Parts: sequence; structure tokens; C-alpha cells
Amino acid sequence: MSHRIITVSREFGSGGREVGKRLAESLGVAYYDREIITAVAEKSGLAEEYIASISERGVNAYYPITFGHTFAYSASPIDPQMEVMAEQNKILKDLAKKGDCVIVGRCADTVVREENPFNLFVYADVQSKLERCRARQAQGEALSDNELKRRMAKVDKDRARYRSLLTDTRWGDKAAYHLCVNTTGWDMRALVDSLAPMVRAWFEKQGK
Amino acid sequence: MSHRIITVSREFGSGGREVGKRLAESLGVAYYDREIITAVAEKSGLAEEYIASISERGVNAYYPITFGHTFAYSASPIDPQMEVMAEQNKILKDLAKKGDCVIVGRCADTVVREENPFNLFVYADVQSKLERCRARQAQGEALSDNELKRRMAKVDKDRARYRSLLTDTRWGDKAAYHLCVNTTGWDMRALVDSLAPMVRAWFEKQGK
Repeated sequence: MSHRIITVSREFGSGGREVGKRLAESLGVAYYDREIITAVAEKSGLAEEYIASISERGVNAYYPITFGHTFAYSASPIDPQMEVMAEQNKILKDLAKKGDCVIVGRCADTVVREENPFNLFVYADVQSKLERCRARQAQGEALSDNELKRRMAKVDKDRARYRSLLTDTRWGDKAAYHLCVNTTGWDMRALVDSLAPMVRAWFEKQGK
Repeated sequence: MSHRIITVSREFGSGGREVGKRLAESLGVAYYDREIITAVAEKSGLAEEYIASISERGVNAYYPITFGHTFAYSASPIDPQMEVMAEQNKILKDLAKKGDCVIVGRCADTVVREENPFNLFVYADVQSKLERCRARQAQGEALSDNELKRRMAKVDKDRARYRSLLTDTRWGDKAAYHLCVNTTGWDMRALVDSLAPMVRAWFEKQGK
């Protein structure tokens, strides 16, 4: 019997990470997000900052996906980036094989699709995302609404681009997900309290 | 205190109607779908078939929205169609003011937006929609997959066009909804059993 895997894709600022974390707690399963970067860094011997720069953004130009080169023999700066993506995908697959879990980001819905995961997309209205971003801003970091909007657009664009390297389905297109939830106006705890039974029911229907 | 209004928009063949009906039963609230056509027909004195042909398709050409003419004085065939839409919108607003309810289709999320409704979008994979259409086909009506796909595309296109007459938000664009649920692989009863508490929690958060 395969595991219960929940993948969470999300718009920047929508609270998807919090939904994923709380959902994992509520379901009593493992939660993977930044942990994936650490694992890739350990496996590859590369710095976490470097991995993080690729982890959800992909490479800086479209490039035929070949993994023939090792890190050592890479002829172009794009090759090691592709290797990082490949390593990350391998780790995601290993995690999904290990046991029930929630995986946030990194196009996991596509990467672990053979496990028949439940794919959740989390989004919100712009105003609600601005408020969330502002609430979690580091002290002293006072970005204007327009600067925050630009950052949100940039991060989401990177995520969409990362996805486009791995699959034809479009990032954020509801067709690729089982459920798309707008967090605007929700209390996160109440939202997850009602999401968890739905996810459980879904897996029961799948015989998991 | 305003009422708990749930609007259900749906792709043709996704089972949105069933979700709406079961949700209304589960929440113990009124359910409106075909009933709206009957009401418009009674109010306007026009045939139900005529109302049905406009009810979710809108008029046959884009036309400035003016309701200055009465049925009797309409100079163009588009005017009575616009009157039917206007009458339908008025009835939707009246229903939403009357009490808690589920309204299926007819761009109700936009029409009754002042009631702060919970807006649900129901969709499914093409294969799953084909199977559902086939299961509910009238005896003797044996459409090919391609014919069914064309019908699905046509109905959805009409719904999108109807929406475009009333609002700038795009039909099926998740941003316009609180929740988008993919019915593929679900047992409808199990799905609604887990949707109902979520909708209840949403209204509680809104103080309804």
C-alpha cells in the first residue's frame, strides 16, 4: 500500500506554508519544506544558499535536460543547476516512498505523481497576501505595497517557470490540483480543521 | 444578520449540480436551480423553454446594457433577452434576501455579491466528465466521446460568455471563488460530507 502524500503549491503570501504545516500536524504525518534544501545540500556538498536559489526557481535559461555531466565536469553554469534540480527530485521521490507526508512547493505534485498524491493549491486575494507579507516582515524592513506586490509577482513567476521545466500543466491552473483553496478571510486553524477530514476522506476513497 | 448563501458554479459534467443539491440537504437550506427558470417564466409570462435558452447563455450578441424598453416596446430581439437576464438577476437577489440557500449557476456569485456568499467552483478531468455525461444520457441517445466533448465545450463557453456580460472576473478563474473542487475520483456523498463542515466554518468566521 502506498503512502498518503499531500503536496501543497501556493501563491507567495497566501499562507500555503502554514496550511501545509498545520495539515501535517493535524494528520500526524511528516512535513517537508526547507528540510528538502538541507537534504540536497548534504547530498551534493553544495551550500544551502546555493540550493535555495535554485530550489523553486529552476535554472536561469531553458536548456535541454541532460544529466550526463557530473558536477565536476560541467561545461556550463546551467548544468550544476540542473543537477541540483535532479537531486532535489530524487530526494522528493525518496521522501514520498518513506512514509505519509506533506511536501510544500518544488513542483512535488508532478515529481511524485506516481504515488497518486493529493494536490492542494493555496491562493488568496492580493490585499490579503499584502497583509500577510506585512505581518511577517522582518523588523526594520518596510517595503511599500508596490514593492511587496512586485516581490510577490516575482516569486510566483519563478515558481511558474520552475514548473514549466518539469511539466506541461500550468502552475496555478486548477486542472492540475484536487482542491484550490482561497485563504482570504479564513482563520488558518479553522481552515485546516475542516481541510484535514476532507483529505482523509479522499485517501480513504483511494483505499489508502 | 444576512443569510448564508452558497453559490455553485460548475463545468458541464463535473457533478456541480449534485454537489449543490447534496450540500443544500446537508446544510438544511433551500436549493435553487431550475426553480429560477420557472420563477422568471411566471414573472415575465414567457415560456420556460425561452427563459431556459437565455438563463445561462445570455444574449446572442454583446449589446449595451440598458433596460429602458419594456417587453412590449423592444425594438430589437436582444432587448427582451436582456430583460430576461435582468428579471433573473432580480429573482436571484430576492431569493438571497429570503433566507439561507444554495444557488446553482447563473453567475449568482456576482449577482448576489452584496450578501457576501460562499462561492464554490466545481470541476473535473475530461475523462471523468465524459463518464458522468454518459451515465446520465437519455436512453437511445448515444453520443460519441467527441460529440460529448463538443457539447461540454459549448455549454461551458456559453456560461463563460454569460458571465462576461455581468462581470470582469473570468468564469472558472479560481480568483473569483472561495474554493474550487475537482470531483474526479470522489464519491459525491463523501465529498459533500466533508465540504459541508468547511462551508459552515466559513460562515461562522463571517459571523453568520
